Amino acid sequence: MKSIKVMVNGIPGRVSSVVARHVLNDDRFELIPHALTGPEITESECNIDASTIQLILPESREQAISEIMEREGAFISVDFSLPPAVNSNAEFYCNKGLPFVMGTTGGDRKLLEDTVRSSSIAAVIAPNMAKQIVGFQAMMEYAANTFKGLFNGYSLEIKESHQKGKADTSGTAKAMAKYFNSLGTPFSEEDIIKERDPETQKNVWGIPEEYLDGHGWHTYTLVSDDKTVRFQFTHNVNGREVYGKGTIDAILYLNEKVKEGTKGTVFSMIDVLKGA
Amino acid sequence: MKSIKVMVNGIPGRVSSVVARHVLNDDRFELIPHALTGPEITESECNIDASTIQLILPESREQAISEIMEREGAFISVDFSLPPAVNSNAEFYCNKGLPFVMGTTGGDRKLLEDTVRSSSIAAVIAPNMAKQIVGFQAMMEYAANTFKGLFNGYSLEIKESHQKGKADTSGTAKAMAKYFNSLGTPFSEEDIIKERDPETQKNVWGIPEEYLDGHGWHTYTLVSDDKTVRFQFTHNVNGREVYGKGTIDAILYLNEKVKEGTKGTVFSMIDVLKGA
Repeated sequence: MKSIKVMVNGIPGRVSSVVARHVLNDDRFELIPHALTGPEITESECNIDASTIQLILPESREQAISEIMEREGAFISVDFSLPPAVNSNAEFYCNKGLPFVMGTTGGDRKLLEDTVRSSSIAAVIAPNMAKQIVGFQAMMEYAANTFKGLFNGYSLEIKESHQKGKADTSGTAKAMAKYFNSLGTPFSEEDIIKERDPETQKNVWGIPEEYLDGHGWHTYTLVSDDKTVRFQFTHNVNGREVYGKGTIDAILYLNEKVKEGTKGTVFSMIDVLKGA
Repeated sequence: MKSIKVMVNGIPGRVSSVVARHVLNDDRFELIPHALTGPEITESECNIDASTIQLILPESREQAISEIMEREGAFISVDFSLPPAVNSNAEFYCNKGLPFVMGTTGGDRKLLEDTVRSSSIAAVIAPNMAKQIVGFQAMMEYAANTFKGLFNGYSLEIKESHQKGKADTSGTAKAMAKYFNSLGTPFSEEDIIKERDPETQKNVWGIPEEYLDGHGWHTYTLVSDDKTVRFQFTHNVNGREVYGKGTIDAILYLNEKVKEGTKGTVFSMIDVLKGA
């Protein structure tokens, strides 16, 4: 079987690198040794295992991509960049006719989807590539829509821990809070307990030292008003491997859709899960 | 508003008593001071708070029920008896035209449903009256049907603790194991870790002493093959209050259905949850 060519764009050293490594070490794929990156990047190349990736700055991307497209033929682009680049990158992929998987958050999400829908390409767009967490969110959404008030009279606690650099509250925790609201527990975003102190993370939460700089731990606890019933849901992610694996599945899914001739369509991680 | 008359049948001192107490202490209901019970019962009456309930043995139930029906008019029957009584009790309710809520497990379940469907009454039949647990099972069933293989490559551990007298493995844990199978984790009923030792329950699990003789604690733990992702779901029930509360909701639901003129229909706890 011919391998699927993949170009992984974004910030070296973050999820992009995890994805690039998965692509490199998987016979089903061939990694294109070039990556579009942002204006803040000063290196001209980066290394993924024994491979060297040429980094392409925004000002040279027009010419570079033409050469790459001519040389490589069809490929899937993967985008893990930064929020300010979301819409301009999507427009770039759409203009060039490059189907893409985007895990970047932020930007104007409506415009992002509209850009793809009015283009000739298909894309998988997912702010969270961790399949199992997306699946768990979908379960919660199903319950929230189907069993309104199921947890009436229950108290809720939401705790999340992430690396020190993460300033905002976990988007997953916020989404979950909304589902729990539908399930009958009053709770606002401000009630979410955020842990960002590495000492507490290590000593109280028991988060392994090597993951203090990259983890996402979440626990939701429901207790009935008479205290006789207790539910607890936990999802703890260390490092970024799970996002890499989910992105691989998204690439495979999108590649099938491209082969089927799908155009102008936005797929979510839920589509990827269902199609797996 | 006229209150709903309820007759609570079964074994004094177990879930029946919890339900009877809820009915007694809720203005929406009126408890009929009689209860059908099994041949093993030697008492002729029992007390629920300040009320005395006359216990009716199987051999006198034909005559007794005619008198009660004549005196009380329409009412909802609740059944928490024992597995051998499931089918004969259902037949009795159906023959007498008594809509019922049945939380009793065991018996021939197919025959049970057929009996109701070919009768003139409606019933809520649910082996588990704990609404929140039923809702959580429904979430899992949804995921198992929608996201096959979501947890491929994950290892699973299921632990459950129940009072010492419970010989069999938790039915909820067994049902969950099947959902996890669809989600990609190989696991058999025999892999479920059963805890029945009160000392371990108290000292290792931290189950409160007063609930050692009546509890159902369950924990499901999923770990990814590279150990970077961990999911854990827990539902811990102490005592039988939650079953009592769920039964009250089932009575209210069935009463509505009876008022609407529904006949020959079996409702599940899922119907009750959706209708809430």
